[in-house]
Amino acid sequence: MDTQEINKIGTYEFTVEPFHADFQGRLTLGILGNHLLNCAGFHASARGFGMTSINEENYTWVLSRLAIELDDMPLQYEKFSIRTWVENVYRLFTDRNFALLNKDGRTIGYARSVWAMINMNTRRPADVATLHDGKLAEYVCPEEACPIEKPSRIKVESQDPVTSIVAKYSDIDVNGHVNSIRYIEHILDLFPLEYYKELRVRRFEIAYIAESYFDDELFFYKDRLNESDYAVEVRKANEEVVCRSKISFG
Amino acid sequence: MDTQEINKIGTYEFTVEPFHADFQGRLTLGILGNHLLNCAGFHASARGFGMTSINEENYTWVLSRLAIELDDMPLQYEKFSIRTWVENVYRLFTDRNFALLNKDGRTIGYARSVWAMINMNTRRPADVATLHDGKLAEYVCPEEACPIEKPSRIKVESQDPVTSIVAKYSDIDVNGHVNSIRYIEHILDLFPLEYYKELRVRRFEIAYIAESYFDDELFFYKDRLNESDYAVEVRKANEEVVCRSKISFG
Repeated sequence: MDTQEINKIGTYEFTVEPFHADFQGRLTLGILGNHLLNCAGFHASARGFGMTSINEENYTWVLSRLAIELDDMPLQYEKFSIRTWVENVYRLFTDRNFALLNKDGRTIGYARSVWAMINMNTRRPADVATLHDGKLAEYVCPEEACPIEKPSRIKVESQDPVTSIVAKYSDIDVNGHVNSIRYIEHILDLFPLEYYKELRVRRFEIAYIAESYFDDELFFYKDRLNESDYAVEVRKANEEVVCRSKISFG
Repeated sequence: MDTQEINKIGTYEFTVEPFHADFQGRLTLGILGNHLLNCAGFHASARGFGMTSINEENYTWVLSRLAIELDDMPLQYEKFSIRTWVENVYRLFTDRNFALLNKDGRTIGYARSVWAMINMNTRRPADVATLHDGKLAEYVCPEEACPIEKPSRIKVESQDPVTSIVAKYSDIDVNGHVNSIRYIEHILDLFPLEYYKELRVRRFEIAYIAESYFDDELFFYKDRLNESDYAVEVRKANEEVVCRSKISFG
């Protein structure tokens, strides 16, 4: 790997904190998601296209899709690392991939994310490819493998919500929206503890469709697709779809 | 400050991550609590009386009380640091204090915590003072000031819960209990967003009384003590008190 290639990929080290481990002592998927998005931020900032720099030009990154596939999850107090790189830059989207490495440096999972850039005033999509005089394209690293499927199209048939929650103070981020990680946690909370005892989440996908806000009541619709797979749709009281997710236990 | 004194105090550096900031862009109190408890762990582990070492001898630390008092809170992406030290060691408890320093190194808050040690088999309290041949006493640092009131006795009169929640997967820690930080978040979620817009949490206290578990329904009782202060009690369906908290807005 030459220097240029190293510069395309960012590697970040973590340790599983006690409150970031679930009842099985393993890192929770919500916290992993949080770390992935932080790494996206670290990587982009260090290369001049992070949130702070594009905010100055009145643009912001919006996470559109995230898919995580795991063979294993690090345990409480274990070190692990996350590698991230840009796979593609299109006009309206960019694909960013991740690898999760355990304490021994072995890859135990991958993730794919799709991001749009919007103009903060108009809320309209902006042209990612021309950002920074096309600088983002310089970091594209298609040669790095990410051997998991791309985020799929998720459809939920159920018309009866399994539960609802009201968005609270702790759900809301600096933009006034329910934060992306909280949706993951609320969706994982739809499953009984037995699922996490006997199985593990092998793949988790989420597509973010609309924002929700403080005091919004969010309704969760859940389809069982087969023995191990579930699809979940989150809707507001007015039926607007907020996000869709697919969870594969295995 | 001589070397011995420096060794009594641990200092740990952090940055406010995007998902750790609330809608005002300030670090949330729940995440601050998480960092404080992590620092307690770092400090204790580095001195031979951390969770991992005492677990080997079949003991575990149990957080009994936490009081946090703040003049300010760091903003998203800002650096801050936490200093922690042991103030007292009694037979059944130890007092650990904290200072919160902003990016410029100015102290912007303090916290006090009270910990018990229990035998993991009998669940009975153990003698903290004799732990490690009394080694914990060597680190006692009463000369370091913590100019905030000790945790108080909290009483809640209300007999009508304002809300209830059912403990979910994301609430549960590696011991199978609802984790200490989640209670803080659920308690802060009892207040409307306007409180956090116009005021800030000046002081937050919590006393942990009993454990709760997956699927427990937790009922929240809230007294308004005066213009700015609230007391909250969390009880199970069988009326058992899980924790009590006092929140002062200002």
